Amino acid sequence: MEKLCTLLGDKYDDNLNARQSHSHGEDGKSGKIADAVVKADCLDDVVKTVNYCRDNKIKLTPFGAGTSLEGHVVPVEAGISLDLSAMNQIINISEHNMTARVEAGVTRQQLNHFLRDKGLFFSVDPGSQATIGGMASTSASGTNAVRYGTIKQNVMAMQVVMANGAVIETGTAARKSSAGYDLTHLFIGAEGTLGVITELLVKLHPIPEHIVVISAQFNKINDAAQLVSELMQTGMMMARIELLDALQMEASIAYSGLAGFDKKDTLFLEVSGGLRSVTEQSEFIAQLIADNHGFNHKIADNEQERKILWQARHNAFYAARAFASRKSGASADTIQAMITDSCVPPDRLVDTLLEVHDELAKSGLQGPIVGHMGDGNFHVQLMIPNDDLMIIRAKKLVGTISDIAIRNGGTCTGEHGIGMGKIAYLQKQHPDLIPWMRLIKQSFDPDNILNPNKIFTL
Amino acid sequence: MEKLCTLLGDKYDDNLNARQSHSHGEDGKSGKIADAVVKADCLDDVVKTVNYCRDNKIKLTPFGAGTSLEGHVVPVEAGISLDLSAMNQIINISEHNMTARVEAGVTRQQLNHFLRDKGLFFSVDPGSQATIGGMASTSASGTNAVRYGTIKQNVMAMQVVMANGAVIETGTAARKSSAGYDLTHLFIGAEGTLGVITELLVKLHPIPEHIVVISAQFNKINDAAQLVSELMQTGMMMARIELLDALQMEASIAYSGLAGFDKKDTLFLEVSGGLRSVTEQSEFIAQLIADNHGFNHKIADNEQERKILWQARHNAFYAARAFASRKSGASADTIQAMITDSCVPPDRLVDTLLEVHDELAKSGLQGPIVGHMGDGNFHVQLMIPNDDLMIIRAKKLVGTISDIAIRNGGTCTGEHGIGMGKIAYLQKQHPDLIPWMRLIKQSFDPDNILNPNKIFTL
Repeated sequence: MEKLCTLLGDKYDDNLNARQSHSHGEDGKSGKIADAVVKADCLDDVVKTVNYCRDNKIKLTPFGAGTSLEGHVVPVEAGISLDLSAMNQIINISEHNMTARVEAGVTRQQLNHFLRDKGLFFSVDPGSQATIGGMASTSASGTNAVRYGTIKQNVMAMQVVMANGAVIETGTAARKSSAGYDLTHLFIGAEGTLGVITELLVKLHPIPEHIVVISAQFNKINDAAQLVSELMQTGMMMARIELLDALQMEASIAYSGLAGFDKKDTLFLEVSGGLRSVTEQSEFIAQLIADNHGFNHKIADNEQERKILWQARHNAFYAARAFASRKSGASADTIQAMITDSCVPPDRLVDTLLEVHDELAKSGLQGPIVGHMGDGNFHVQLMIPNDDLMIIRAKKLVGTISDIAIRNGGTCTGEHGIGMGKIAYLQKQHPDLIPWMRLIKQSFDPDNILNPNKIFTL
Repeated sequence: MEKLCTLLGDKYDDNLNARQSHSHGEDGKSGKIADAVVKADCLDDVVKTVNYCRDNKIKLTPFGAGTSLEGHVVPVEAGISLDLSAMNQIINISEHNMTARVEAGVTRQQLNHFLRDKGLFFSVDPGSQATIGGMASTSASGTNAVRYGTIKQNVMAMQVVMANGAVIETGTAARKSSAGYDLTHLFIGAEGTLGVITELLVKLHPIPEHIVVISAQFNKINDAAQLVSELMQTGMMMARIELLDALQMEASIAYSGLAGFDKKDTLFLEVSGGLRSVTEQSEFIAQLIADNHGFNHKIADNEQERKILWQARHNAFYAARAFASRKSGASADTIQAMITDSCVPPDRLVDTLLEVHDELAKSGLQGPIVGHMGDGNFHVQLMIPNDDLMIIRAKKLVGTISDIAIRNGGTCTGEHGIGMGKIAYLQKQHPDLIPWMRLIKQSFDPDNILNPNKIFTL
């Protein structure tokens, strides 16, 4: 590695601390420890590193904020961890086009902070402080997807460094294009196995004039699901439709102080637009809540109140971890997070949730559930103290829940990706697709340098 | 071909009429004549044909409704034209999931007719009677894209027959998924070069409660463009934003009898939703029209009136052809249609349109313009009588307009695809991407059987 060190100077780091901190994400998955970390701060650093790794048959694993939940950033076969978090320039904002050009290491919070006075925002909002490059690589989404789409609908073009060192630009600044194979969408969700994303052109959206968050609580999860189903079928353009189940509410009330809420299954429903439009929709939703036995119906119509609710929702992961820590007496940083990510067709959502609740009860484990109900995507947040038997039981349960989703015509991952954690489930879900994914991988990265052994094994 | 004839019986047709009618789309592009046509009516027919072609090194060109505008269906190297229009079963509608499973030969009109009593519709609406398989293959969109997205956002999964005869299913019925490489998006816009699409799972949308179409006319196209720009930046969820320029209005008034409209640049703006929301938005738009010097402001708020406007918009191609026929004295079926398909970033739209108008004037050709203004996509509809010199001039102009779009940071094709017609422009627009597209093609279809010489040359 001496030559790489010479090439990159102090951006090359082989001390153990850096290597260890770059060898895992926010879940418990692990593999080898990286041989060294390269902290790239420009395109040229990335190209040099890729060329070096390819020429010397050294594996390379891209690393963003390290918030992955499926082991994407684990250097399974050691080699270089290529940290892009210092590539955090916001290159250009076009207010007219409502786009931002950013380096891959820009986080969504950084971009939205930068945009705060422009009346625009970037909509994709996973819970974590993720980088936008990482979000594209894992095909992320979040609470806004029901209205603004996932990252798939919000990336227009990307600059990518390919395994042969070529730098390509996958799209244009036009809002649509039919110009040949859609390579932008190929790199989204490819988890760094086909190329290293270095820049992105993303869509921004105008901040709506009026926003209200309507919340309601339910004694039966079926009622909440039935409400969502009726709501979606009106075609009303909902901004967000989020579920926190009773156990998650218990955790979130403790962590985020949600005054006035009970430990009951809860929906947060966001509506936005012109004043009359918002009023009209809020009235309609109030009726739906009453029809579906909802109670504790609240309306948050100022920014402060809304922020409390969405902060609590975004902190659901940390709330669940703190809850498990309190219950088990284990310290939070020793707790292993295993977060399921099933997404099922809307007509299978209630049955799936009930089946998952049954399996949870059978397992004896506690798993607060949060769900992007408008998309049919939900997360069981298993937080397991360092106990081998419980970890085995939790792994089994994660598998069972993936199987349930697949059996119900859905997917084992709605927004977290396959990484190391779901390779077996991708094999169950799409056995017919993996040979074609392999062909693409082999033709783009013939030496299998880029993030090897993720998504599928070669 | 005897063996193929034996395999497929009367679905195999080698009479000259069938071969000729399957050797071109709705534009003037041509190549060889197919050696035979296979009219598949089930998956098995497609698999048999693909296997036969591969084993015997015979080229295969998929054919839907034959409405392509870039020569996608032309069998450039002869071989089999695989007609999928008889695969027109609507397999399943899920009202709860708001999805339809259809065979590739179902047309959008057929699907929407079938849905007429269900309160749901399929939104992607190119002007023609296209098949949904063809629309996916060419990455089509239409007037609804500004609200509901292009076909890219409306196909959830596809069944595809691969060159090796394998039948794959690219997605699930869940509304999102991060399960490995996004093969659904890879086949969308691949123009049948990577596999033959046989079934699709598509999204449906609820028909909005209230719909109004607001129209206004302008003396200067800049004013219309300025209005659209201001409108988009409000974030108001517009259903459609269409421009017909003064020449197109002249053609459309003659063809579609648009009573009360002048031969002026015209916007059709559709708003939908709840009654109060629609009223609020209509009032806002009325103000924008006044601010931007619009006149002849009309509101079409019943189905009959709206239908007249959208029918006229969808018939813009035929109106332009009839107009050219009348002007030149040539019969409509001898007129060659060359339709540009540029799409540019919003902030370049006005300048691009003005530059295109200049080039049109310089060329001495007439080209009515229609535009999906919300997306920055516009079509110059050159309708050229059978006159060699004029055809040369028109081809040159089409090239100039593609160059203008690329120079302005846009794309030579927003929704028609590359086909035969735009190969040189794809090379100008994305020279860095073509090597990677080629690698995918070569690994998926190593014998280069499927629709050869489309998008790029090998």
